[in-house]
Amino acid sequence: MSSSPCVSHHHQVRLRLPAPAAASFAPPALRGRRRVARATMSAEAPLGVAPAAAAEGARTPAQQALLAEMVEEAAVWCAVNGLVVGDRANQRSGTVPGVGLVHAPFSLLPARFPASFWKQACELAPIFNELVDRVSLDGEFLQAALSRTKQVDEFTAKLLEIHEKMMAINKKEDIRLGLHRSDYMLDSETNSLLQIELNTISSSFPGLGSLVSELHRTLLNQYGKVLGLDPKRIPQNWAATQFAEALGKAWAEYNNDSAVVLMVVQPEERNIDGRTVAVVYFRAGYAPTDYPSEAEWRARLLMEQSSAVKCPSISYHLVGTKKIQQELAKPNVLERFLDNKEDIAKLRKSFAGLWSLDNEEIVKSAIEKPDLFVLKPQREGGGNNIYGQDLRDTLIKLQKEQGESLAAYILMQRIFPKASLTPLVRGGDWFEDLTISELGIYGAYLRNKDKVILNNQSGYLMRTKVSSSNEGGVAAGFAVLDSVLLTDEGKVWIAYRITDNDNGADGTVML
Amino acid sequence: MSSSPCVSHHHQVRLRLPAPAAASFAPPALRGRRRVARATMSAEAPLGVAPAAAAEGARTPAQQALLAEMVEEAAVWCAVNGLVVGDRANQRSGTVPGVGLVHAPFSLLPARFPASFWKQACELAPIFNELVDRVSLDGEFLQAALSRTKQVDEFTAKLLEIHEKMMAINKKEDIRLGLHRSDYMLDSETNSLLQIELNTISSSFPGLGSLVSELHRTLLNQYGKVLGLDPKRIPQNWAATQFAEALGKAWAEYNNDSAVVLMVVQPEERNIDGRTVAVVYFRAGYAPTDYPSEAEWRARLLMEQSSAVKCPSISYHLVGTKKIQQELAKPNVLERFLDNKEDIAKLRKSFAGLWSLDNEEIVKSAIEKPDLFVLKPQREGGGNNIYGQDLRDTLIKLQKEQGESLAAYILMQRIFPKASLTPLVRGGDWFEDLTISELGIYGAYLRNKDKVILNNQSGYLMRTKVSSSNEGGVAAGFAVLDSVLLTDEGKVWIAYRITDNDNGADGTVML
Repeated sequence: MSSSPCVSHHHQVRLRLPAPAAASFAPPALRGRRRVARATMSAEAPLGVAPAAAAEGARTPAQQALLAEMVEEAAVWCAVNGLVVGDRANQRSGTVPGVGLVHAPFSLLPARFPASFWKQACELAPIFNELVDRVSLDGEFLQAALSRTKQVDEFTAKLLEIHEKMMAINKKEDIRLGLHRSDYMLDSETNSLLQIELNTISSSFPGLGSLVSELHRTLLNQYGKVLGLDPKRIPQNWAATQFAEALGKAWAEYNNDSAVVLMVVQPEERNIDGRTVAVVYFRAGYAPTDYPSEAEWRARLLMEQSSAVKCPSISYHLVGTKKIQQELAKPNVLERFLDNKEDIAKLRKSFAGLWSLDNEEIVKSAIEKPDLFVLKPQREGGGNNIYGQDLRDTLIKLQKEQGESLAAYILMQRIFPKASLTPLVRGGDWFEDLTISELGIYGAYLRNKDKVILNNQSGYLMRTKVSSSNEGGVAAGFAVLDSVLLTDEGKVWIAYRITDNDNGADGTVML
Repeated sequence: MSSSPCVSHHHQVRLRLPAPAAASFAPPALRGRRRVARATMSAEAPLGVAPAAAAEGARTPAQQALLAEMVEEAAVWCAVNGLVVGDRANQRSGTVPGVGLVHAPFSLLPARFPASFWKQACELAPIFNELVDRVSLDGEFLQAALSRTKQVDEFTAKLLEIHEKMMAINKKEDIRLGLHRSDYMLDSETNSLLQIELNTISSSFPGLGSLVSELHRTLLNQYGKVLGLDPKRIPQNWAATQFAEALGKAWAEYNNDSAVVLMVVQPEERNIDGRTVAVVYFRAGYAPTDYPSEAEWRARLLMEQSSAVKCPSISYHLVGTKKIQQELAKPNVLERFLDNKEDIAKLRKSFAGLWSLDNEEIVKSAIEKPDLFVLKPQREGGGNNIYGQDLRDTLIKLQKEQGESLAAYILMQRIFPKASLTPLVRGGDWFEDLTISELGIYGAYLRNKDKVILNNQSGYLMRTKVSSSNEGGVAAGFAVLDSVLLTDEGKVWIAYRITDNDNGADGTVML
């Protein structure tokens, strides 16, 4: 037998369905199958934009048929390659594994992204990894920076309490493992790559993200020629493997063959039959809802007290808060933690404007021009950012109160990504809409005392959402998983993913 | 970056959940998650059998918890590795790709199978491959053998009509590709491996079958030690890759770089944009329902007339009919096609008794002892075999009619597999029941004129069904996908998959 045990796509035969035929030739089953939902322009979309319907009209029937064929192939690919999520419409999904599955929502084609910004984002990963580690060692800095936050946010207060207990017993973590994701958007106003946030706990989607890159590469291998898109311009994405390898290496550093890696899907006190835990990997514990009672907090403390490698430790967790992000953006703070001036300059270049509400001048500016700012609550989980008129009203209210509640928010420079018209696939249906994208760069860091074992960029995640939506992860709202198609352009975004501008329709829009 | 692009399970870190804890420690989410359905003994199960409930009682709570943990891990594995099927409960599944998915039904542990019978079945594959090819070249034999069948079965008549047209124009197929699956059961009466049927068109489940072997290997790598089961005893199963490679090699033999492989999911006349087809791979066309109108028959004829490699050709298709199986089982018929006496002896050893209803003596025996026979209709698709009292009644009725309808059936020796108590997983729930198993061995054959390019055993499929069910593919009724655990026993089956016989409960049962 000449087969290799590793089923590779290079060895597989591509089975090609016949090209889409004229409607009269299509069998009834296929005609029924292609249920195409077409979104009209979102009501919230800005004025002065070529409506999606016009651009859509620009597609020839052959192009439409090609996209429909690609959607079908892509959805099948998802099913057989594990690019699936729980279907909210199915009551059992999410509680019973393996049932109620549906392909993850995805963009049919990768998002164009200038190669220069891509390189910049990748180079930042090891620097942020190092920064997190350095900051985590300065317990006093963390406590001081978050001292006001804890008075208004009970969750941060609970984390700080654990952190304080560790400081009190002078707990040292020799082996430190970080699996981070730094999120960026391209700002069309400044033509720059700006960091949105840095995730240091439970960085999500390394698995599905890797798969979307593979899906897009598979599609472009088959359709890239006719679309004029080169599959080689999709960067390799081995995020899941690299995270797994990092966990494996941390386990090896712990140096106990009978010890296990514990994945925490809910902090809990639980009998693990006397087995030694080498590594605790948190896939939960970052949101207040993960701690419905004191028992979960006791479990978190117990794990922190243990000798296991924590991914992340309480210190790493705290470094990922928005308040610390804002503190690090202050003048001369990075210099406290890093020596390399080039690294500092690179980090600073990626920082958006970030301010606490103590800064009266900025608060005044934000009330005057609310559209240039975002008001962000401290807590994790998304969904609560405040924009526009709401931002103005909230700031005025907070100013009047003049209490500690000011510390519950930070102000951030608003980023203006350009939108592009993108075919999105969700629940087997596809539609086109104007979208904006956010690039997440994974980083893996592992050290044992003075020895840095790993400090890498470790794959990426592109998330693309309908541009009328201000907020929302892939799981909530109209957002999809995506990947990257590197371009040589120096400017951010281009209007269409499939170049189809013959009729002059231009989907470029500023938010 | 040190990762390889090929994500292998050897490189992956196993993330272990804590061992199942006492109920009081389990979090509410997990308690709710383990919805365990337990089937009581099927009403149709034979008397004198230890009821499943008794055996189930034999499991300690720790064993039950272990199985529940394995079920959960297995279901997650299915979701992320593409071991999924359409959920019948979801109306859109089956029409819209990528939606309404659920893990394929599977047995939690591989079926024990004596290594000697396994070896025998594997050795038969290249011999059957060769036999199919030889018989396919004898058009007169096929027409003569099926001449009575075509008078009672319109479907076979239609196939023969195409075959006749090809004979009339003296159509030769230089490149011949066969992707077969020969199905066997172990008969406890004769302690022998007996062929059920040989599939020469659209041999199903090479993809899911390979995955189940990988699932079982993954589970035994993790739990094999505590279960006393060695993962190395699960034979490698690369059926999907091997079938794909065979298709690729057939495409290469066709020797036209711009030609495509066409997968037929419904025979149809369709515009393929002038592209040349190198290989036609039928994943449909074996059942009368695949041809709702004359248009589909015209498409089948068109494909047969083309120069493309057909997998299968009309001749290969006809060789797979039950009537030809029965003809080949007659004395001196194999000798007409094969020279090697050892090969002939091996094939014959695997033949169950097969008779046409012309054989009055056998019909008389079957009326007297209906439980020793199965009455099989000619047509493909399953679900219509006749057993027991129904068999007796049908034979008596057919005898009275004495018409051509006798030719619509063949009689087959009934095979008596032993049953074993097996944990089955379906729709996220698990239960145990007595089951019997059927082993399918895939074979790939490719030749170009006198040159045999491939003649291999190409993986396997184990299907396991609740023993009260006389019939049923994996998709219909209570059957699950399974794999093989080789044992050294010379005898067929053993009672339990997990040895757990302390209380003397014995699930062995004869059907």
